[in-house]
Amino acid sequence: MGKVARIGVSLDRDLLSKFDDIISAQSYENRSEAIRDLIRHRLVVAEIDADKLVVATLTIVYDHHRPNLAEKLVDMQHGAGSRVLAATHVHLDHHNCLEVIIMHGRAGELRDLANGILSLRGVKHGQLVITTTGKHLR
Amino acid sequence: MGKVARIGVSLDRDLLSKFDDIISAQSYENRSEAIRDLIRHRLVVAEIDADKLVVATLTIVYDHHRPNLAEKLVDMQHGAGSRVLAATHVHLDHHNCLEVIIMHGRAGELRDLANGILSLRGVKHGQLVITTTGKHLR
Amino acid sequence: MGKVARIGVSLDRDLLSKFDDIISAQSYENRSEAIRDLIRHRLVVAEIDADKLVVATLTIVYDHHRPNLAEKLVDMQHGAGSRVLAATHVHLDHHNCLEVIIMHGRAGELRDLANGILSLRGVKHGQLVITTTGKHLR
Amino acid sequence: MGKVARIGVSLDRDLLSKFDDIISAQSYENRSEAIRDLIRHRLVVAEIDADKLVVATLTIVYDHHRPNLAEKLVDMQHGAGSRVLAATHVHLDHHNCLEVIIMHGRAGELRDLANGILSLRGVKHGQLVITTTGKHLR
Repeated sequence: MGKVARIGVSLDRDLLSKFDDIISAQSYENRSEAIRDLIRHRLVVAEIDADKLVVATLTIVYDHHRPNLAEKLVDMQHGAGSRVLAATHVHLDHHNCLEVIIMHGRAGELRDLANGILSLRGVKHGQLVITTTGKHLR
Repeated sequence: MGKVARIGVSLDRDLLSKFDDIISAQSYENRSEAIRDLIRHRLVVAEIDADKLVVATLTIVYDHHRPNLAEKLVDMQHGAGSRVLAATHVHLDHHNCLEVIIMHGRAGELRDLANGILSLRGVKHGQLVITTTGKHLR
Repeated sequence: MGKVARIGVSLDRDLLSKFDDIISAQSYENRSEAIRDLIRHRLVVAEIDADKLVVATLTIVYDHHRPNLAEKLVDMQHGAGSRVLAATHVHLDHHNCLEVIIMHGRAGELRDLANGILSLRGVKHGQLVITTTGKHLR
Repeated sequence: MGKVARIGVSLDRDLLSKFDDIISAQSYENRSEAIRDLIRHRLVVAEIDADKLVVATLTIVYDHHRPNLAEKLVDMQHGAGSRVLAATHVHLDHHNCLEVIIMHGRAGELRDLANGILSLRGVKHGQLVITTTGKHLR
């Protein structure tokens, strides 16, 4: 570490107690170390420059009975043109679908596309995973 | 909030400065609020009970020229039996593949399977997304 | 060959002429041999007993702008329950999608499901491939 | 029909008898009509010019325990570069995999790629479906 700063964080005792359980389960030495890790992970995601070429997957769970949702999802993916490489769909039960959309393009465009899809009514859960082509990863 | 605790966190000034940039970009009121959000998100992931039935996707990027890696990946997925529903593969470039593995089963089993795959040499990057069938999500 | 029958076939001269081109390109000895091959191939497909457990893929090309088509496709696949294992979708251009639906179940059920999907307006082309789990194939 | 030709076909009585069963099950008026349909279907496949841009799916079933097969399959797909759009893999049982490879490119190239994959030892069954982007299909 370089020059060290010290900040204060106020939080609900209940939240702190649950966090302490995780900290001890993962054998962190102290809370500062655990919180630094959370911040570093957050920075990794944020620091993917909007202009950087990346690949990404968006996992969504949705209710296919929601009117027009299936069509909006297809429309948005087609609207994204060659950014969407493929999508694989699994039928979880009578109502629910899981779909994984594989994309490539600039990080900013893909984040926008993901946010657009995640904001559709009937999409219950979703998570974007951004990665690179692996060229610069050891 | 219930009863409030106040903790001190020491961290590198450089790390803090980058985190402050994100905080202001996302219009958080203050650092405590931003850190509470990181902790809450961490708890959501941790609190998925190992016995809970979930669906999950594992996104990996790997170098298919690494000897035996393609076969180990197929073997591990077959070894997991009906937990692996499907996998979709995209060829990124001459060396690199992106694969998304769609799984269902108990959260603990899927985390173990994911960790096993992520620890293979030649798997450069990977991220597990755990979700539910959506039955209990509004 | 066992006991040989001889049948007469009437067909358009133009059709015959194109067929003769294929016959010579594939170095068949004569038309009878080429037609026997077509019949044998047809029998292989027909002879998959409706009760036999098989795996199958249905490849379809459709226009996602056709009203309600995307939703009907998702509905029919969900209605088929566990027979549909996964579907992968590729966006060909602004209008057209290719989707491959992977199914398992009794051959008769899967043929019915495929025919139902193929008969939807807006599905331009489709082909069912039935195979087995490979257990009895050398 | 234009000018009609009449040809003679000799075939095993047993083969003819099974074919007659299909003919009556499908309510063809006579054998000529049924055979004309087989020939027309054969022409459709053959007439896809090697230079024509098409999309195609190749469905294969293979034994993933065959040494090096999984790697050869990945290598051949990467060797084909941008012609392979995506591949989806389903684990049928402890030994057998079904994989559907989605491709686009010139019909001749895709037929060559498919033949190369189908000729690998351990690939038990496979079928290529060639279609178009649907632009010229009513």
